[in-house]
Amino acid sequence: MKLEEYLEKNAELIDTRLESMYGSLPGELDKASAHLLCAGGKRLRPSVTMLAANIVEKGSSDSVIPAALALEVTHTFTLVHDDIMDGDVARRGVPTVHTKWDEPTAILAGDVLYAEAFELITMADADPVAKVEAVAILARTCLEICRGQHEDMSFEKRDDVDPYEYLEMVGQKTGKLYAAAAAIGGILAGGDARQVGALHDWGYLSGVAFQIQDDVIDLMADSEKSGKDRASDLREGKQTLVAIFAKDKGLDLSKYRKENLSDEEIDQAITELKEAGIIDAVRETAMDHVKRAKETLVVFPDCEEKRLLGEITDYFINRSF
Amino acid sequence: MKLEEYLEKNAELIDTRLESMYGSLPGELDKASAHLLCAGGKRLRPSVTMLAANIVEKGSSDSVIPAALALEVTHTFTLVHDDIMDGDVARRGVPTVHTKWDEPTAILAGDVLYAEAFELITMADADPVAKVEAVAILARTCLEICRGQHEDMSFEKRDDVDPYEYLEMVGQKTGKLYAAAAAIGGILAGGDARQVGALHDWGYLSGVAFQIQDDVIDLMADSEKSGKDRASDLREGKQTLVAIFAKDKGLDLSKYRKENLSDEEIDQAITELKEAGIIDAVRETAMDHVKRAKETLVVFPDCEEKRLLGEITDYFINRSF
Repeated sequence: MKLEEYLEKNAELIDTRLESMYGSLPGELDKASAHLLCAGGKRLRPSVTMLAANIVEKGSSDSVIPAALALEVTHTFTLVHDDIMDGDVARRGVPTVHTKWDEPTAILAGDVLYAEAFELITMADADPVAKVEAVAILARTCLEICRGQHEDMSFEKRDDVDPYEYLEMVGQKTGKLYAAAAAIGGILAGGDARQVGALHDWGYLSGVAFQIQDDVIDLMADSEKSGKDRASDLREGKQTLVAIFAKDKGLDLSKYRKENLSDEEIDQAITELKEAGIIDAVRETAMDHVKRAKETLVVFPDCEEKRLLGEITDYFINRSF
Repeated sequence: MKLEEYLEKNAELIDTRLESMYGSLPGELDKASAHLLCAGGKRLRPSVTMLAANIVEKGSSDSVIPAALALEVTHTFTLVHDDIMDGDVARRGVPTVHTKWDEPTAILAGDVLYAEAFELITMADADPVAKVEAVAILARTCLEICRGQHEDMSFEKRDDVDPYEYLEMVGQKTGKLYAAAAAIGGILAGGDARQVGALHDWGYLSGVAFQIQDDVIDLMADSEKSGKDRASDLREGKQTLVAIFAKDKGLDLSKYRKENLSDEEIDQAITELKEAGIIDAVRETAMDHVKRAKETLVVFPDCEEKRLLGEITDYFINRSF
């Protein structure tokens, strides 16, 4: 099966399950919790969980579906809380929860999703020992995501962030959840330590590559495709790998740090960055992560799931939105 | 052992464990998470978990200590987030997390505690099947607490809350966590459904009594003892059982709904409420819950733990702060 086809089919399955479980609960708080969760998305993390289960034990992906949902629910909880902190007003083409409702409701809606994620793990059809381990991994991952988000916010007050710090922050914020998505799938399917370790590392490295590409997309893609404001990182002077490499090369991006940045100015910034070799350097860092991610899969024999996981890593840095 | 002595000894144990696990982590976010958690408190929920374990299986309380800590950590997470929503500036004699740091950090600090709570459950020394069940109960409980807090906030915009709605809200906000504290202790110690059900109901009913008494304390106790502003509920026109019963008796408390309420005015309100029989009626409701809570313990043979649990219920409504 082609990756695109696989991801689409799986996203549909995940959408249907989430909708049936959380899409029509009556209370206002449940509506606020379901708002972003049931607003679509590529559902990459649950797909990773299901592929990881299958690569360990062919045919086990159905039994881990609740855990796959847990990963998407966890991701959504972090988005709901992050949107409050970052003051973002739209996501996935809908208003953010604190915009549509209010901040207290958005805090609680995120907290509800948080609880549902852990409940979902317990609902997987797997060995209890594996489920306890999966809960421990998810808990540890949530902790790391919080630390990453806190680090990301602290970067806003600094102008001396180095690439190493950036990659560590991105690893906590994005890498760890992909690592958990893959590791939990593997654990619940009965994987051994070597398999689970490989899946964890694959997810971590792929997730970091994903986030680096996300920053490039923020700069390059037009808003209609990405569903986000174009070049918001540039406008806000955010410490992305692009900005950090630019600073290292003596390129001054501070002139672009303003609310009303025109498309011409953004294009000019891109030209400057390209000419200084910064876009290439960032792409190279992403490519390096992709290469290392794929190497981790060597512990598995060749199979369709291995090919699809490898293609997901490629897709992470080739997507344009 | 006398209850007071037992609770003190146990609070010390809990304090020591929490301090050693979370009290000296280096990061700023970890400091914010530990701030309220390591600021003392009566540690009633973990004591309940340990007593519940012991009543099911003598000597098992040590093996459930991590889960007992999880209950305190969960309680603290809800306080940190509630304080943001309610705009409270002090608790347990220290500034609230969002006051000492800021709102984004407080949201994240609560989220960190949330993760730690689930991680702690997995660290208990118990059967994996029991641990999975404990995780499921804790998750469901967090969900209920969120719903209760949301309901509580929605009451602020209403003046037609009836006693039944109030008791249900309080059951979600406070009862469910005591129910979980007791049930999780029982489950991890290997209790059967009848024992666990009894412990759950004991916790729920005791927790509701606890909260009713909390509202009475808010009105009656002086600030120095309770550590909170005196009569804040009265000042804010909060829908407590006192306010709801007052309305039913045609007593108008709206004249006390103002910022600068004097001690004389508070005393006058108390006199009015006493004369109308409202304080007695509220006490009677609490007493009824106490009676039913103690009755649930009939499934256990007489033992020290049973006596202590019963005394905890009494203590919940006899405490003055």
